[in-house]
Amino acid sequence: MMKHSGLIYKPGSQKRLDEFATESTGNFKSKNSADKILAKSIEELSKLQDLLYAQDSYSLLIIFQAMDAAGKDGTIKHVMSGINPQGCQVYSFKAPSAEELNHDFLWRCNYRLPERGKIGIFNRSYYEEVLVTRVHPSLLDLQKLPGWPLNEDKMDEFWEERFNDINNFEKHLKNNGTIILKFFLNVSAEEQKQRLLRRIDDPSRNWKFNTGDLEERVLWNRYMLAYEEMLKHTSTKTAPWFVIPADKKWFMRTAVSNIIVETLKSLNLSYPEIDKKQKSDLNRAKVILEKEFGK
Amino acid sequence: MMKHSGLIYKPGSQKRLDEFATESTGNFKSKNSADKILAKSIEELSKLQDLLYAQDSYSLLIIFQAMDAAGKDGTIKHVMSGINPQGCQVYSFKAPSAEELNHDFLWRCNYRLPERGKIGIFNRSYYEEVLVTRVHPSLLDLQKLPGWPLNEDKMDEFWEERFNDINNFEKHLKNNGTIILKFFLNVSAEEQKQRLLRRIDDPSRNWKFNTGDLEERVLWNRYMLAYEEMLKHTSTKTAPWFVIPADKKWFMRTAVSNIIVETLKSLNLSYPEIDKKQKSDLNRAKVILEKEFGK
Repeated sequence: MMKHSGLIYKPGSQKRLDEFATESTGNFKSKNSADKILAKSIEELSKLQDLLYAQDSYSLLIIFQAMDAAGKDGTIKHVMSGINPQGCQVYSFKAPSAEELNHDFLWRCNYRLPERGKIGIFNRSYYEEVLVTRVHPSLLDLQKLPGWPLNEDKMDEFWEERFNDINNFEKHLKNNGTIILKFFLNVSAEEQKQRLLRRIDDPSRNWKFNTGDLEERVLWNRYMLAYEEMLKHTSTKTAPWFVIPADKKWFMRTAVSNIIVETLKSLNLSYPEIDKKQKSDLNRAKVILEKEFGK
Repeated sequence: MMKHSGLIYKPGSQKRLDEFATESTGNFKSKNSADKILAKSIEELSKLQDLLYAQDSYSLLIIFQAMDAAGKDGTIKHVMSGINPQGCQVYSFKAPSAEELNHDFLWRCNYRLPERGKIGIFNRSYYEEVLVTRVHPSLLDLQKLPGWPLNEDKMDEFWEERFNDINNFEKHLKNNGTIILKFFLNVSAEEQKQRLLRRIDDPSRNWKFNTGDLEERVLWNRYMLAYEEMLKHTSTKTAPWFVIPADKKWFMRTAVSNIIVETLKSLNLSYPEIDKKQKSDLNRAKVILEKEFGK
């Protein structure tokens, strides 16, 4: 068992992002020992998901946000393979379509939320609004908001409102049975560089390389500021952010799977029990089935 | 390796459903030997799904239809757990909503189709139209079709048109890169009875029992006729039906996973190769990355 409370971005904290280690491996001395815990977590997760589905009362929304090559896809693959795909929905958000831009920024995420009893994974999410859109404010022009463009001195208030909208949305989800886990996979600029170079040098990885990633990399410091602001404003008791050191993939995967397992365990899930009326229905059904003849 | 061509309902065949064994276990002498093949298939499936996703050219639609308790959910769970849920979408169709009834019967399935590069699983599907709706024709009243109700002597033609609509829809999907696999899990009435009794007798399974299942069970013979008609009319070269003996769950799972693996293998999938232009972009990106200093 690992302790992960140290990975939470404490609600109300003003901690700077550069105070978080990207290369930490927690209590683990080696990949080997972490992999054993990961394998155990994956097994537990599969059982807990079955309970979540059977109880049909909560749903779990897991959000991943990170810089390119930080390991969103790989983490989803390694942590969630093993789960029954009937109880798990993954949605990867890309640049919004024309239709999506004609709605508010939460809209497209809203109808991809997991149903009750299911685990939903957002690979990127409505948080892109306070990340990529914040770093490229001209993207806001596409939203055709009333009274747009705002005066420069109104922009702080604008982002404040964005954060409030998100927090209220998550509160609403929580009130209706959706547990929210938010993971920021915190990779260093140097490690990202090495991973991008590997995509170039290894022919089998070439197809994963996107030249657009370099343009975003140039804006690294502005992105880090946006992530820091996001953490400060939207890590709440309702839905805290976890800042996961992402330079060692094996640690990142083990930490993420462990947090998911601990969260599901804390719900004290159980298989539904039937009431007296249902019990007597079952007994009647049994009589009917046993009396059958012919077939 | 197992041979599964014997499980296809040959296009154009007029074979009766009762000519298909429900308890067959193919070439397998024991659960043990089948489970080994299943484990190997699951591993292969995970690799093939990665290729399907990377190549991003085909999608795979897998349809399950069966009587209650035949093993749709269990088969999906056992065959597909192990796959990356990011590349796999499962959709379970229930009784149509009021909104869905205001559209044609293919509509609600259409927008749940798998995206290119993904595996989509339909737990029930538009085939419910020629199964549950055919057995309960009063359900057609809810669709508010023009000229409804039809004269009794027009009904054969009506169902013929339904089958044509489905075949043309599947042809369209195939033309656009969707490979379609259709599994009818063929359970015997006696085995269904035993499974329903188990849900009653085992308290941990009580929640799975639905008293409505008994009402449908009474209509067993009419359902078998509807399935037979479905097989005769919609097992096509484009999208053949597989009739899977379902009395032995271990055989059913191994057969299904094997057919999926063989189908994906037949596509000769490969990781995308990059062209000259992309190659030179990569080289330029490498120079930029390596020249970086500071950060």
